[in-house]
Amino acid sequence: MNQELKPIRNLIDQLARLPGLGPVSSRRIVLDLLKSRNGRMSEIATAMQNVAASVKNCSICGNFSADDICPICVSAERSSHEICVVQDVSDLWAMERAGAFKGRYHILGGLLSMLDHIGPEELRIPALLQRVAEDGIEEVVLALSATVDGQTTAHYIAGQLSARGVRVTQLGQGVPMGGELDLLDGGTITAAMISRRPY
Amino acid sequence: MNQELKPIRNLIDQLARLPGLGPVSSRRIVLDLLKSRNGRMSEIATAMQNVAASVKNCSICGNFSADDICPICVSAERSSHEICVVQDVSDLWAMERAGAFKGRYHILGGLLSMLDHIGPEELRIPALLQRVAEDGIEEVVLALSATVDGQTTAHYIAGQLSARGVRVTQLGQGVPMGGELDLLDGGTITAAMISRRPY
Repeated sequence: MNQELKPIRNLIDQLARLPGLGPVSSRRIVLDLLKSRNGRMSEIATAMQNVAASVKNCSICGNFSADDICPICVSAERSSHEICVVQDVSDLWAMERAGAFKGRYHILGGLLSMLDHIGPEELRIPALLQRVAEDGIEEVVLALSATVDGQTTAHYIAGQLSARGVRVTQLGQGVPMGGELDLLDGGTITAAMISRRPY
Repeated sequence: MNQELKPIRNLIDQLARLPGLGPVSSRRIVLDLLKSRNGRMSEIATAMQNVAASVKNCSICGNFSADDICPICVSAERSSHEICVVQDVSDLWAMERAGAFKGRYHILGGLLSMLDHIGPEELRIPALLQRVAEDGIEEVVLALSATVDGQTTAHYIAGQLSARGVRVTQLGQGVPMGGELDLLDGGTITAAMISRRPY
């Protein structure tokens, strides 16, 4: 009954497992690519192989990098005394888009989670403690999600660092830009009230 | 500012141009693939290259095919006297999923469009007329979209075929399965009223 060819079927199945895609959107993408077959399909395949072949993880911070050490860790313009701890590279990208931090990063690669049996050793927490001990770090900014796992992880790291004489901070909580008060949850409003400032 | 690597940036840009995707969903997909880098990224690239290398168009009906002639046109189980005319391969797949047609297909590759300067020669209409003239076709089912361009194309093809003594039909119009009357447009209700049947 199914007249889709096997290689096409295989490609649709693989794309359908990507985040945000399903069988229908995946089929639509493959059909679109098939119509300009000699063009974009090969281009995208080549682009993927380039990424797979050339991208590795920075040995210091865990960021994606073409070299052993990423451009941020190499850059002389960025303070080497401040580390911003983030969950994933996507968070690093978000921080860089905001442009609000001029130090270096440390990517945990996940969050502590009792349910998923993820402990400190599964994350890059030991590497963080080692960096703080060895590299003359003065401040560690915890930029983790305001979720239970995020705050558990922040609490654990802050505890580990407290004995080392390093300043540990975390991102401020409050009303987001453009946020309408009547649409915000109680937790956010409480946090904003606690961190209120003189006008 | 932008710390995304060039090959990653390139891949995100390419995926963002696919139908249904944009820069945000594309970035999410690439990040997901990067996390399991040695696995799925290469797999998908290989799957795409397989498709690009192995899939061509059936020389008779225009369907995607690994061989010169597609499985539907080759099949002895399918009537060679009936042709269902569809706009694109996606429509052929939709027809096959429904399983309501046991003849063969002809894919136009588009619809006539004054605005886009698409005339009969840009589509596979001459090939259709030739098939009808040479292959002993008895019925041509026009399964084109119920849009202006779709109905213009159906009208043109029906006109071309009328002189050749072949039966030309089109898909029935009416209330879709599960359709709620108060949500249907007036055109559909009119079409359903015209094609009403004894209960």
